[in-house]
Amino acid sequence: MKDKAYFLTKAQENYPELNFTVLTPDITEFIATNGDSVLLDLGEHAVGHFSFTFDRVNIFVDSPVRLNIKFGEDIREINDDFSQYNGTLSNTWLQEEIINLDFPQNITMPRRYACRFIKITVERTTRPIRLSDFSFKASTSADISVLKPANTTDDLLKKIDRVATNTLKECMQTFFEDGPKRDRRLWIGDLRLEALTNYYTFKNTDIVKRCLYLFAAGECNNIGFLPSFVYETPYYHSGATHIEDYALLYVVSVCDYYEHTGDIDVLNDLLEICKSQLESFSATLNENLITTKQDGWFAFIDWCPGLECLTALQGVYLYTLERFSDVLKTIGDKDYQKYSALISKIRSACKTLFYDKNANAFINDYDNKQLSVHSQVWMILGGVIEGEEAKKLLLYCLHNKNFKQPVTPYMRHYVIEAMLKLQMKAEAIQYLKTFWGGMVEIGVDTFWEAYIPNDLEFSPYNDRMINSLCHAWSCTPSYFIRKYGL
Amino acid sequence: MKDKAYFLTKAQENYPELNFTVLTPDITEFIATNGDSVLLDLGEHAVGHFSFTFDRVNIFVDSPVRLNIKFGEDIREINDDFSQYNGTLSNTWLQEEIINLDFPQNITMPRRYACRFIKITVERTTRPIRLSDFSFKASTSADISVLKPANTTDDLLKKIDRVATNTLKECMQTFFEDGPKRDRRLWIGDLRLEALTNYYTFKNTDIVKRCLYLFAAGECNNIGFLPSFVYETPYYHSGATHIEDYALLYVVSVCDYYEHTGDIDVLNDLLEICKSQLESFSATLNENLITTKQDGWFAFIDWCPGLECLTALQGVYLYTLERFSDVLKTIGDKDYQKYSALISKIRSACKTLFYDKNANAFINDYDNKQLSVHSQVWMILGGVIEGEEAKKLLLYCLHNKNFKQPVTPYMRHYVIEAMLKLQMKAEAIQYLKTFWGGMVEIGVDTFWEAYIPNDLEFSPYNDRMINSLCHAWSCTPSYFIRKYGL
Repeated sequence: MKDKAYFLTKAQENYPELNFTVLTPDITEFIATNGDSVLLDLGEHAVGHFSFTFDRVNIFVDSPVRLNIKFGEDIREINDDFSQYNGTLSNTWLQEEIINLDFPQNITMPRRYACRFIKITVERTTRPIRLSDFSFKASTSADISVLKPANTTDDLLKKIDRVATNTLKECMQTFFEDGPKRDRRLWIGDLRLEALTNYYTFKNTDIVKRCLYLFAAGECNNIGFLPSFVYETPYYHSGATHIEDYALLYVVSVCDYYEHTGDIDVLNDLLEICKSQLESFSATLNENLITTKQDGWFAFIDWCPGLECLTALQGVYLYTLERFSDVLKTIGDKDYQKYSALISKIRSACKTLFYDKNANAFINDYDNKQLSVHSQVWMILGGVIEGEEAKKLLLYCLHNKNFKQPVTPYMRHYVIEAMLKLQMKAEAIQYLKTFWGGMVEIGVDTFWEAYIPNDLEFSPYNDRMINSLCHAWSCTPSYFIRKYGL
Repeated sequence: MKDKAYFLTKAQENYPELNFTVLTPDITEFIATNGDSVLLDLGEHAVGHFSFTFDRVNIFVDSPVRLNIKFGEDIREINDDFSQYNGTLSNTWLQEEIINLDFPQNITMPRRYACRFIKITVERTTRPIRLSDFSFKASTSADISVLKPANTTDDLLKKIDRVATNTLKECMQTFFEDGPKRDRRLWIGDLRLEALTNYYTFKNTDIVKRCLYLFAAGECNNIGFLPSFVYETPYYHSGATHIEDYALLYVVSVCDYYEHTGDIDVLNDLLEICKSQLESFSATLNENLITTKQDGWFAFIDWCPGLECLTALQGVYLYTLERFSDVLKTIGDKDYQKYSALISKIRSACKTLFYDKNANAFINDYDNKQLSVHSQVWMILGGVIEGEEAKKLLLYCLHNKNFKQPVTPYMRHYVIEAMLKLQMKAEAIQYLKTFWGGMVEIGVDTFWEAYIPNDLEFSPYNDRMINSLCHAWSCTPSYFIRKYGL
């Protein structure tokens, strides 16, 4: 029987092997007295455990030594004063420890950190001390030896590809984490983008399989939607909430997996769950087959302040119906027709109900005429609008301040997906270079969770200190560059 | 050859077995939200490692949890605000940690603490959490099964004896520590008193042997004095300074050990080192055979503000000469006469030079006429004054405010030793009851490093928070009660 235990067993069978690399900073020894500090640079972003040796210089240290150890994904984070943090997420994600050491020892700090820089400040010592043997044991389940260089001659795209694969590598741990500094959870939205990029880079299909099973084991309500995220350390725990676009994108992720692997066993294992996502969603539809706003956090789409998501969510539904019915058709599942029959009806309804002739664009809803790039992108990906008309609309909304603009790299992924669907290869390259290239220009090692050109202080959480600077949903440039030969 | 390596090997051969006891507080589970705190009471003073389990209550905790964990030897320490500490010793001895936990886990904190109370404050959580499985793994090298009740019918003395043996037990770890909360070092002055008490309580002579060898391996100067303290964790390290009275009391400690064990091999191993302590000391004598004040911290005697130590130190010398020459005589060592011949000469010199007829007491020095109990006690223990005359002097100085009074339990030990030398058994009992009994009255679990009746804020380090409340040099009531049948 395919129950929670079955899915967890399957997930466990595909537990990845972690590959470890020991990084050492240039500085190998630091002699310090009270108040001194040292900055270590690992030379690259790393996820793992930090070790060092503390010893006396000459006279034995006659009282415990107190160290403040700060880990930063970039140097700005090192220079931030965490006591001034004023964001909406818990300050405990800020990577800083105060430790007291009683006597000389080699210490491996128990927590995992995501960082390139480490700053050690000697908060209190009564004698000179020697810190040495700095070592960072970095982990990833990505196998670097599998990775081939991107087949592009464009220098900036090459650089973008390197940072993107590095971002994915850092997020690939025992599952696809959203960000190794913060959250460290498996979210459906991130999973889908990581899996796509992974198919064209590290090609570890087992970890995708594992993540799909981890969600299959999840329960968060009695209406059939999967949880939007799960935890697996130190034991499996299902997130307590769902998000409808994520639940739908789970179905798409299963389709992606099947198309890339042809693994019918996994598809069969997950088919009922996929169907139940669509059933649960159909329960939200009104008489026009348009979804209705549910209580709580019903859709994600993007971290964009004030964004209304109804039209975009309807696009995600169409996108899912199309992908899923194609897969059902391929395997001869009789439900194929039920889903595909819906598609044209819903597309018509969307065009009729959401397309505003005055605005020459899709509005969010009849009750809320908000204009957003998000609505246009998902109507395009949902096949409501196509060809030259769609191209014109997309270019228009991306350059018009009356439209809410994409904020996260996650949403920007779907902008590019829409462009490539419309054969707008040149525009896609330009968009990649402007956005991800902008991060490359400021010297990032990994792509950020949130980036707005010319606003380096932007945070979805009211304080930039807490932002994740290595975030899975930013890794898809490598997918585009490699799949579409950009 | 008897070199450092030889002595360290001998010390290692006598490495004690630690006995572990797991203590659990009454409270077994604590459900907390942000800002909550819980006070755990182990029911007794303990030295060791604290463990607990952190888990979610219902919803998974979606960000790291920050705990402040404070360990107090008594409840006052728990209620102290360590940020207000203003003492002369390093604040890192104050037992408080801030830890961040990423996910549910059972954690054993890496440092050793000395405490009865543990207060856990949840500094930051975004969800309710459960703390449970509180457990404290206490260690001691004392074997409780060896301990017999004191043969006294006096209730207060019984209580004093129990607290005193408990104090010794807690300080007996891999060597005789001075205090398990702070310093955690092997000091000669503490070693001597712990060894004496141990002979009449836990009877672990191997640990005494080990400590004597640990000092024998020490070097801190090129004039032959042993270091006043040594460390052995994580590797042997000799203290960088000597104190003359401690160097002399090392010799006395070897004599004590030989008298209690008859172990001639150890005595032979350490004989040259003992002689070199006396040779080094004799180099400080002037033409009258009186020691001269040396640079730096040359004598300890007591933590008593402004105390002048010359006369007391001279008494320690006489005390040592007498004990050592007796032992040499017993084993037929020809140096016996050299040392014993000095005794009467020096006693005369002391009486002539230090006894002030106007004050009717020993002054500190011809240049500094400071009056102190310390000078009288050590002149008595050095045999400069005896019998009724000595009794009268001792009682007089103990009740006269013109005399500097003893501060530490360490110095008070020698007051009682002087009383018992003079057959002042009733006075000794009274003194024990007043001082150590005073601590029992306020409910201590172990005897303190520093205690002044009616001044519970007293500290030799300018801030009471840093005081050690379980201190080896306070354990000798059990020695007196048991040896002298008080």
